[in-house]
Amino acid sequence: MTEKTHNIVVTSSTMSDPASLEEGKTRVQHIENHSTQPRLLSDMIIGFSDGLTVPFALTAGMSSLGSTRLVVMSGLAELFSGAISMGLGGYLGNKSEIEFYRRERHREQMEVDLFPEKEKEEIYDIFAEYEIEREASRGVVESLARRKELWVDFMMKFELELMKPEDNRVWVSAITIGLSYMISGIFPMIPYFIMKDATKALFVSIGITAFMLLAFGVIKSYMVATSRRQIVVGAIETLIVGAAAAAVSYGMVRGLDHATNL
Amino acid sequence: MTEKTHNIVVTSSTMSDPASLEEGKTRVQHIENHSTQPRLLSDMIIGFSDGLTVPFALTAGMSSLGSTRLVVMSGLAELFSGAISMGLGGYLGNKSEIEFYRRERHREQMEVDLFPEKEKEEIYDIFAEYEIEREASRGVVESLARRKELWVDFMMKFELELMKPEDNRVWVSAITIGLSYMISGIFPMIPYFIMKDATKALFVSIGITAFMLLAFGVIKSYMVATSRRQIVVGAIETLIVGAAAAAVSYGMVRGLDHATNL
Repeated sequence: MTEKTHNIVVTSSTMSDPASLEEGKTRVQHIENHSTQPRLLSDMIIGFSDGLTVPFALTAGMSSLGSTRLVVMSGLAELFSGAISMGLGGYLGNKSEIEFYRRERHREQMEVDLFPEKEKEEIYDIFAEYEIEREASRGVVESLARRKELWVDFMMKFELELMKPEDNRVWVSAITIGLSYMISGIFPMIPYFIMKDATKALFVSIGITAFMLLAFGVIKSYMVATSRRQIVVGAIETLIVGAAAAAVSYGMVRGLDHATNL
Repeated sequence: MTEKTHNIVVTSSTMSDPASLEEGKTRVQHIENHSTQPRLLSDMIIGFSDGLTVPFALTAGMSSLGSTRLVVMSGLAELFSGAISMGLGGYLGNKSEIEFYRRERHREQMEVDLFPEKEKEEIYDIFAEYEIEREASRGVVESLARRKELWVDFMMKFELELMKPEDNRVWVSAITIGLSYMISGIFPMIPYFIMKDATKALFVSIGITAFMLLAFGVIKSYMVATSRRQIVVGAIETLIVGAAAAAVSYGMVRGLDHATNL
């Protein structure tokens, strides 16, 4: 569990000035927030980044057929499929995480019971990575060896680098991701709801999506970036994702339409 | 970075018998694999779980319009949009992770330089969580205090629980996710390519997808589950995601089709 995909951890301190006078306070929030707010934000980011590209790209592609009705139907079909898939996917992902943690903790518990000396050596090894000699580490090792439960907790975190997942967040995460996807995905479709000309609607949809992608890119980059330059870069990058997906989608449907119409 | 979404870490040891005689060896692999193979596998899982549900659900919905041609066009449009969005999304996600790590390390470096005593206290606090007294911790703390770079590394991992992201994996991850999505997403569409009757094709598509979802569910659960029961549960859960998405998508397109045909 030492690595993540699509999961941008955001803490209050990330958004604060590094030279903040409230350094200490920020740092505290920083740690506290690690397991709560960042998760919510990262779930939203996951939902938004996909919701802002796929529904837009699909409807852009379908618009080349000239029927706003088809665009709306395929768009909504995708929107709900995607939201359910991402939401339930998030739910299952979190549940797997919890299973995995339980299994690994059980293994670790067993090892501490069966091979305590081997586990002690593993603590020495962890500290050795930081050039801490056995003598210096002994105090910590012996102290841990006296408290088995805490010892296992220590190994889980510092040897296996597994963090205890929060069972209660499973559904929150699923709903956050699914809703973020639907909310961000509905905007590019609005033009097709109200306009009759699919091509005109496409241009309005491009405008809406470009604006939302840029805004999202700026916000996202702002939360993780270190400089103004990176904010701009991040915003443009996010825009490129949507543009690339939409262009490919449009070309594909258009090409197929012509090919099958010959 | 202490938590992940959609990221199931899989290690060789997860698949090995806990009572394995090669316990030691497995454990070593276990740790080594944490940052490499699991990431690849989790990227594939992310691509597959979405690729097996959304394209299937969308095409199922569109099939209610009775034209395999429309199904194929919308399906392929979705397939490419989704793959590009997920792939580039993964790319940007990993890049943000790297940015975030750099920023946080810079902060930590600054704190170690400016407030060494405060940072020392933070090490004592980390150990205090495991009921390790100051006396026992002193050796480690003083030893770290003598090596600033390693001290910062230690704080990054043990205080902030941030793991150094691998820059070189950014593209690998993007391609893995995108390809997994396309490969898994193309299967449910095959019937629509070769059959003329959209409804008949739908049933074949359901069969293909159900089989793939179950297989995927079994494999995924096997890699993280602890018991046969969980494997079955996991497989059924994965199947439910696809079924729910497809049903909603079908009902939506069908309903809209009728409503707009009145």
